[in-house]
Amino acid sequence: MKNNKDYKNMDLSAYFIGPKGENGELFKELTTKLIDEHIGYRQNFNSEDANSISEEEKVSEKYTNAVVNMKEVLNELSQKLRSGSIPWPTAGRYWGHMDNETLMPSLLAYNFAMLWNGNGVAWEGSPASTLMEEEVGQDLAKLNGYKDNGWGYVATDGTIANISALWMARNVASIPLAVKEVCPELVQDKTDWELLNMSVKESLDLLDKTGDKKNDVKAHSARSGKNIQVLGKWLVPSTMHYSWKKAVDITGVGEDNLVILPVDDHYRIDIEKLDKIIRENVDKQIPILGIVGVVGSTEEGAIDHIDQIVKLREKYRKEGVDFFIHVDAAYGGYGRTIYMDENNEFMPYEKLKDKFNEYGIFTENNQFLNKDVYNAYKAIADSDSVTIDPHKMGYVPYDAGGLAIADTRLKNTLTYVAPYAFQEGVAVPASIGQFTLEGSKSVGSAASVWVANRILPLNISGYGRLVARTLFAARKFNDMVDGMKFEINGKTIISHAVYEPDFNMVDWVYKIEGNDSLKDMNALTTAMYEHTSSKVGNLYNLKLVTSASTFDKNIYGDAPVKFIESLGIDKNDYDREGNLEILRASCMTPWVYDEESFDYWAPRIKEAMKETLEQIAEEDDIIK
Amino acid sequence: MKNNKDYKNMDLSAYFIGPKGENGELFKELTTKLIDEHIGYRQNFNSEDANSISEEEKVSEKYTNAVVNMKEVLNELSQKLRSGSIPWPTAGRYWGHMDNETLMPSLLAYNFAMLWNGNGVAWEGSPASTLMEEEVGQDLAKLNGYKDNGWGYVATDGTIANISALWMARNVASIPLAVKEVCPELVQDKTDWELLNMSVKESLDLLDKTGDKKNDVKAHSARSGKNIQVLGKWLVPSTMHYSWKKAVDITGVGEDNLVILPVDDHYRIDIEKLDKIIRENVDKQIPILGIVGVVGSTEEGAIDHIDQIVKLREKYRKEGVDFFIHVDAAYGGYGRTIYMDENNEFMPYEKLKDKFNEYGIFTENNQFLNKDVYNAYKAIADSDSVTIDPHKMGYVPYDAGGLAIADTRLKNTLTYVAPYAFQEGVAVPASIGQFTLEGSKSVGSAASVWVANRILPLNISGYGRLVARTLFAARKFNDMVDGMKFEINGKTIISHAVYEPDFNMVDWVYKIEGNDSLKDMNALTTAMYEHTSSKVGNLYNLKLVTSASTFDKNIYGDAPVKFIESLGIDKNDYDREGNLEILRASCMTPWVYDEESFDYWAPRIKEAMKETLEQIAEEDDIIK
Repeated sequence: MKNNKDYKNMDLSAYFIGPKGENGELFKELTTKLIDEHIGYRQNFNSEDANSISEEEKVSEKYTNAVVNMKEVLNELSQKLRSGSIPWPTAGRYWGHMDNETLMPSLLAYNFAMLWNGNGVAWEGSPASTLMEEEVGQDLAKLNGYKDNGWGYVATDGTIANISALWMARNVASIPLAVKEVCPELVQDKTDWELLNMSVKESLDLLDKTGDKKNDVKAHSARSGKNIQVLGKWLVPSTMHYSWKKAVDITGVGEDNLVILPVDDHYRIDIEKLDKIIRENVDKQIPILGIVGVVGSTEEGAIDHIDQIVKLREKYRKEGVDFFIHVDAAYGGYGRTIYMDENNEFMPYEKLKDKFNEYGIFTENNQFLNKDVYNAYKAIADSDSVTIDPHKMGYVPYDAGGLAIADTRLKNTLTYVAPYAFQEGVAVPASIGQFTLEGSKSVGSAASVWVANRILPLNISGYGRLVARTLFAARKFNDMVDGMKFEINGKTIISHAVYEPDFNMVDWVYKIEGNDSLKDMNALTTAMYEHTSSKVGNLYNLKLVTSASTFDKNIYGDAPVKFIESLGIDKNDYDREGNLEILRASCMTPWVYDEESFDYWAPRIKEAMKETLEQIAEEDDIIK
Repeated sequence: MKNNKDYKNMDLSAYFIGPKGENGELFKELTTKLIDEHIGYRQNFNSEDANSISEEEKVSEKYTNAVVNMKEVLNELSQKLRSGSIPWPTAGRYWGHMDNETLMPSLLAYNFAMLWNGNGVAWEGSPASTLMEEEVGQDLAKLNGYKDNGWGYVATDGTIANISALWMARNVASIPLAVKEVCPELVQDKTDWELLNMSVKESLDLLDKTGDKKNDVKAHSARSGKNIQVLGKWLVPSTMHYSWKKAVDITGVGEDNLVILPVDDHYRIDIEKLDKIIRENVDKQIPILGIVGVVGSTEEGAIDHIDQIVKLREKYRKEGVDFFIHVDAAYGGYGRTIYMDENNEFMPYEKLKDKFNEYGIFTENNQFLNKDVYNAYKAIADSDSVTIDPHKMGYVPYDAGGLAIADTRLKNTLTYVAPYAFQEGVAVPASIGQFTLEGSKSVGSAASVWVANRILPLNISGYGRLVARTLFAARKFNDMVDGMKFEINGKTIISHAVYEPDFNMVDWVYKIEGNDSLKDMNALTTAMYEHTSSKVGNLYNLKLVTSASTFDKNIYGDAPVKFIESLGIDKNDYDREGNLEILRASCMTPWVYDEESFDYWAPRIKEAMKETLEQIAEEDDIIK
């Protein structure tokens, strides 16, 4: 990805269709150009071949009937999508789910690639995209600090990537026990406890030593169905994405082995408590299969202390205890681009301020100079695998999740070869499908991520600038909603931000001043959501769109208590109600990126909130 | 899908861009129209809002730099795809993998839907596509004869659909044991053997009886990690797709529980041997978790006797033995549309001939009047689940696999709820992601399948006619290659079709007349492949493109022996060589559909084969 392009002097605004279709003509021009290039290919492949549809046929009644039918159905589709879609292309009125408009070049690449209908499962089904996906895999691995031995691919989504990571963690953890069965001489000096506490590297080195018995060892690994239940516990924070429940279910690791880690009032894993949980298990001789650290949690954008998890592992390694570390950075992963310099090297902390100034980003107090956040991102390099979704903060269309692994050999614990798709003994690039849960797959995903990464390098000169736009928006939005006052029905209503954001997500609530009932606050916050979401029916008339979530005491424990108490609400109220309702904004808009644009939107957002509160006062029995 | 449209009088040729871009102008016209409709939506959402990109910005140097960058990268992409794609849009020169051009309206729908960037995981992420996916799910369920209680969805691909089916089969099979733990009173009269041999319906009825302990029961099911190894054997034929190896691995069922069923010389499961295998396991009190029947096997297009598998289950049920039946119709599933009348009812056998005549299809001897094939398709209605991929014989773009289940409650054995995505207690359509392995997903897939099904009904008036085109092509191709002679280097080379096709796939080999060495035949067949595939480098210069496969004796057993012996080759030769090499054509072209078009292509194909054989004779040491 090194080249002489002056990325710093490229206007990010050219890369989107734009909230008002500002670049719509350019998009159409490029769309047409690419279609023409594809049709030229068709026409000239054995150009001596006759057409299959004659001009006579094209003016026949049956042909016309078919075209009419097609147009009618497409009109119906257009109507459905126009009335049943979420208006996230708006620059400043969508403050909800993690979704937004996508990069124009990625849309173009996806559309264009689709015309070829290649199958990304195998090199033979798509030589071009297989090579592009290999490059993209390397991009993702290197972004996360996995140096020469890393590997990655474009998964369907973050859920599949997380499941695949657990699948690999499970299989590699079972290798030493399989070696004991097949080649006992290689591990005769080891106890079962030692075999269950080998690092990923040790297990893979051991597998390499089995020579021509390698396939036999793999047949005795967890893929056989054996030993899965002895591999130990899979630890994830309470802020986890629900895909982890699917993951332990599908892999047979089982919910009984899923341990939910408590988080602190920053919604990050409580490291002391984690240490205690590991200790308790080790004392009972229960292995730790792995720990998931989250970078950009689904409901808070919180960033776990990956560095401290890595340090814990170093500590435990000294006493012969080891575990897999997976980073679920499905959402926050692209944040690492801000710390990468133009040569794709992770920058020393001391250099950040100057570099940020050079790019004109983070000119105000900002979370990306927070040392906790910096250290967490830095330590991803020491993890074993990472989920990072281009279709989230990479601004490429679905389906484009991503998985990267630190040791490329890890993928071989899953290898499956289809005779028709992967001709053996042929010196072609490795076909992706033999290492993935998915089989057939679109060429579009690989192409669109490939194009995105070449247009926006995965460092501060490219994606870093784009991610920074959203961090600016989030910081401004957070500061705006924290303490914003509305006079409604003779009452003062104040909104409060729930935490100091680590990333670009903001959670907030609405409270009637002087009313310290959590129940009432929850009701008002929920009412705000119900008036600014799909619940209203036609989204197209909304002035403001949000999303909501619930912090359930059964899952979050006391994490929200400090915040609740800061509002004057009694902790007992939380214990009784059992939950805190919040509004949740994934501030992904690329269009609120400087003081001028924020100043344009802020009064409009405030006005929309005020109107909504007035509507609630009128309709419901909440503001009284 | 009932309406007054006269589908019979619609020309299928209007629905593709065409091998030579014959409908390219129409495609561009509709593309532009849909983009304009989308941009109109953006412009008019709160039309009072200002643009985010000014005209001044659009003529700035930085903007120009960005556009240049974008164009350069897109040019590079175009070059990569033009030189590294498979030329399957050709009407008559691609006889290889299961891939072809896709339906124009589905391409348009996908491109259009992508502009909204909805997330199909949840209703709130995409109200329109969630409703469309529900409709499509019903389409797929009904096509397979699952009446009112069925359910389906658009999976990433057939692999994920197969894995999900096994996941459901595993979880539902574990429910009775979970009930025994949580509500023992409900099953106190049952032995463990009886609990392990309940039908899907019985297990789900039992789960329904657990009332408010349902979640607790589910927590004790296989999702806990317990009992997976006692559920028994998963039986699949030797013609299986390699995804079944992934499936038993990832689910923890394990390869040790995977039983490979022998196939007969039609490459269909040998039912007598299947019966024997079941009997042996039952005698040892090992349960049968499930049986997979394949409809359209990956390398032969073979169609298993689903009806006889169903009958076997009826027989065993009488002695208290039960199992799940999954049909892997990823490839062949759309063949069922040929047997569906215009009201989407499966037709009686006696009506077929007249109906085929009415539509002008199968006017010659054809496999779709074969009673075995008919009975197999009919019996899919009695299975528990079916994989059926729109991105194969549905001619829609990737990623669009499909899974349908007979009893909608089955999906609840997997239910996971994300608090932010699936607001509980809200009367909205069920969000797809809680029942699937995938999380975030493209809106494009659901939209493109929805459009396809509305343009081409899933019966003889729509898809049936399209699938019939390919069956015609396959029959003609098969008859052509079977016994085709070439005089090369003073030798006569004859090509032979390997079996009588059940569907639209043809396998064939090349043999030097008088040389009865399997080794030599394999070498010649392989050489043909190597000269007509990606192996040659630039595919764009090829006159003919094929794919190849291997029938390995370790997997296929004696299935190919009858064919091999019919060529005069000794069975011992097969035992010694250990494999039969074949060429394999998935005859998916929609453009070889009548005598005229076949007569155009046949001499061109023959000429290309002859040239290739001459090239081999010149370069290699094989034809001698």
